[in-house]
Amino acid sequence: MGSEIGVIGLGVMGANLARNLAGRGFSVAGYDRSPEAGLRLEADHPEARIAVAESMEAFVASLARPRRILLMVNAGPAVDAVLAQVDPLLEAGDVLVDAGNSHFTDTDRRLRAGRAWSFLGMGVSGGEEGALKGPAIMPGGDRAAFETLRPYLEAMAARGAAGPCVAYCGAGSAGHFVKMVHNGIEYGDMQLIAETAFLLRRGLGLTAPGAAQVFEDWNRGELDSYLVEITARILRTPDPLSAGFLVDAILDQAGQKGTGAWTVLAAAEAGVPIPTLAAAVEARSLSAARPRRLAAAELFPSESAALAPLALDDLRDALYASKIASYAQGFDLLRAASAQRGYGTELSEMARIWTAGCIIRARFLEDVREAFLKTPAPDLLAFAPRFAEELRRREPAWRRVVSAAVLAGLPVPGLSASLAWFDTLRTPRGTASVIQAQRDFFGAHTYERFDRPGVAVHTAWT
Amino acid sequence: MGSEIGVIGLGVMGANLARNLAGRGFSVAGYDRSPEAGLRLEADHPEARIAVAESMEAFVASLARPRRILLMVNAGPAVDAVLAQVDPLLEAGDVLVDAGNSHFTDTDRRLRAGRAWSFLGMGVSGGEEGALKGPAIMPGGDRAAFETLRPYLEAMAARGAAGPCVAYCGAGSAGHFVKMVHNGIEYGDMQLIAETAFLLRRGLGLTAPGAAQVFEDWNRGELDSYLVEITARILRTPDPLSAGFLVDAILDQAGQKGTGAWTVLAAAEAGVPIPTLAAAVEARSLSAARPRRLAAAELFPSESAALAPLALDDLRDALYASKIASYAQGFDLLRAASAQRGYGTELSEMARIWTAGCIIRARFLEDVREAFLKTPAPDLLAFAPRFAEELRRREPAWRRVVSAAVLAGLPVPGLSASLAWFDTLRTPRGTASVIQAQRDFFGAHTYERFDRPGVAVHTAWT
Repeated sequence: MGSEIGVIGLGVMGANLARNLAGRGFSVAGYDRSPEAGLRLEADHPEARIAVAESMEAFVASLARPRRILLMVNAGPAVDAVLAQVDPLLEAGDVLVDAGNSHFTDTDRRLRAGRAWSFLGMGVSGGEEGALKGPAIMPGGDRAAFETLRPYLEAMAARGAAGPCVAYCGAGSAGHFVKMVHNGIEYGDMQLIAETAFLLRRGLGLTAPGAAQVFEDWNRGELDSYLVEITARILRTPDPLSAGFLVDAILDQAGQKGTGAWTVLAAAEAGVPIPTLAAAVEARSLSAARPRRLAAAELFPSESAALAPLALDDLRDALYASKIASYAQGFDLLRAASAQRGYGTELSEMARIWTAGCIIRARFLEDVREAFLKTPAPDLLAFAPRFAEELRRREPAWRRVVSAAVLAGLPVPGLSASLAWFDTLRTPRGTASVIQAQRDFFGAHTYERFDRPGVAVHTAWT
Repeated sequence: MGSEIGVIGLGVMGANLARNLAGRGFSVAGYDRSPEAGLRLEADHPEARIAVAESMEAFVASLARPRRILLMVNAGPAVDAVLAQVDPLLEAGDVLVDAGNSHFTDTDRRLRAGRAWSFLGMGVSGGEEGALKGPAIMPGGDRAAFETLRPYLEAMAARGAAGPCVAYCGAGSAGHFVKMVHNGIEYGDMQLIAETAFLLRRGLGLTAPGAAQVFEDWNRGELDSYLVEITARILRTPDPLSAGFLVDAILDQAGQKGTGAWTVLAAAEAGVPIPTLAAAVEARSLSAARPRRLAAAELFPSESAALAPLALDDLRDALYASKIASYAQGFDLLRAASAQRGYGTELSEMARIWTAGCIIRARFLEDVREAFLKTPAPDLLAFAPRFAEELRRREPAWRRVVSAAVLAGLPVPGLSASLAWFDTLRTPRGTASVIQAQRDFFGAHTYERFDRPGVAVHTAWT
């Protein structure tokens, strides 16, 4: 009797996925090209009883048929190397799923290779702890191959209120595309929270624990989420090296590993505006250029960073309204990509599997799921009755906050991009008439008239 | 004696370039795969005496050596088809320049093909009229090959205050890259002007000719530019089909031909934030989804679109400050791409060749040129003493305008993205400390401390 499932790549993430599976009662084989990784796993976690093989051949031979393999190695050439190595060893019915952080176009390319066995692409979110205790899992590709893996993935996944946090994301590279958008949304959430924390502290003068208290209060309401929760904990953490708070000692240069920028690129290619997510990526890039920022600070000193008096509820409302805008953009990208790329992604299911296990997990996503379960589904998340009502109610506060920050010179690129998106969307006769006239003036591109839709008109403007 | 220079592609743009060259006294040959195009050119413009050839072979044979050829056909497969056709006919020393709107990555690909003769890529801006009377010309690639063409290009180009509007843009695909960024900046200018026109009319209640008068006044000052000038003329144009003004009859759905989106993609790949340009592309995409906008307008009706009282000078200052921000972003992209891609682009020269002939031509660009001529050149256009001073002076008005528009619910995605970029840049201790703490909390990504730069620190947060 061979092992029920195997894991290739026994770094921290792969080892934790293997231990997760073993902990659900499955027999698990493992392989890593570095023998040390396997020895460490056996030594540190003998209770998991992972059957670590000494060669790829022995690993494949140790699996029951059809073979089920999770691949968790560095995205890029390492994935192609493993695929080349296992290809002659696998046969019809076997399924190998790339659970790493591959770019969806690499997954598309790998899917085009003719193979006797099935290849799937799958996003996994939740970090090291999630991999062990239950991540959000985003598989895509051949549906029958997914069904072969489904019981294992469901057992491993985080438990949400509406079932395990795994769902078929769609055909082809849908799994990695959905994971990429998850990360783009995560960038948006983090930026919006960081701006709000900045307004609380720099604008309203709260101490770090004072701001922590505000986030703790908000975390009992509609903003209840993992990222708000950890922000409160961060703001309460003392600095071990000074009498102050740790957050104030941390250099304000944000890193990024690329998935946010990937989302911006994919959105630009799909023609879907995601300004909140893009502002988050841009803010990280700008923050990283610290010498330039310090030069700018010298040239353009702040007159006064004091905010006009604002109620804490206003800040909460601005954050929540911006979050709705941000998720509306992210889900709109999923919708458009699904249509353009033939994924067949179920938006309500994507919201469901993000309710637990992943970084953006939040009560909010249960409401998003409900919104997309309705028939007909809303054209845009912001149009769902529940969220439309929330936006209407919070709109005045949203305006007060952005306008006060703008006057005070406090940077709110995410909050203001969200509101600008909303205002551009809701203006029935917008700014584009002038642009169409300009294009016709200098380039004879023609325009349409309100009273003659569908007819291309050109004016000799002289 | 063969013709001094030849043009392949005798559509309106190609025919006008050929007539432009002939008008400068050069002997010009022409070829188009469609005989009608050549016959039309000969019939309509006998005075140009273009020697239209009946075959590619006859065309190439009719040119003096070294052969000089301008290619002006549709970007894409048509370019590759011509290259394959002429390749066996040309020899060492001959130069063919693709003057069409090719994507720079296509130019890169074409440059990788080994050829006996020289291939160049070149941007041309100015539309049909510019092609005839003098466009801005942006050639790139092999420098010696450019020198072979230089006298012809200088003769054809628009005349700026500091010489003909042509300059070597750099190695490889630099010419098409520079032209793409020109178009991205053009998108930004158009959006900022359209938003300002909207504030004048919808926010301050001016009539179309009233707003035209404002732009005419501004066109005598620092905003003096082709796009401001034509906007005034557009706003004065009566509607031939009603008693109103034409701009009010024009459907507010903006088209785009892709070069703005290309710029956003290139910037995302280069890691350079260009939020003003991106907002312009996004606003066009949002405007195009009119059914969705009408649905949003029903759900989120505007309470009041009346702006708080604002001086016209405030609007001018906000437009001008945003324009500085927008050009700072665009030139920063040119700078970064030049470094990353080895172009060797001279920023002052790019500003110079845009001072006349092209869509963004403006007095402003003479100041930009001067700023980049200084040694050392400013790290960012906004840091040049002249522009830094302008930004400081206009900053309060910029804030008043964006803040009033935000309160009134009038969409200003370009103006507010520009200001958010400025504020993010000038904040010495920004919002990213919280983001770095979050990344370390959930992903153990580590952070640096202000007091221990260069040392990666990880905190066990719980």
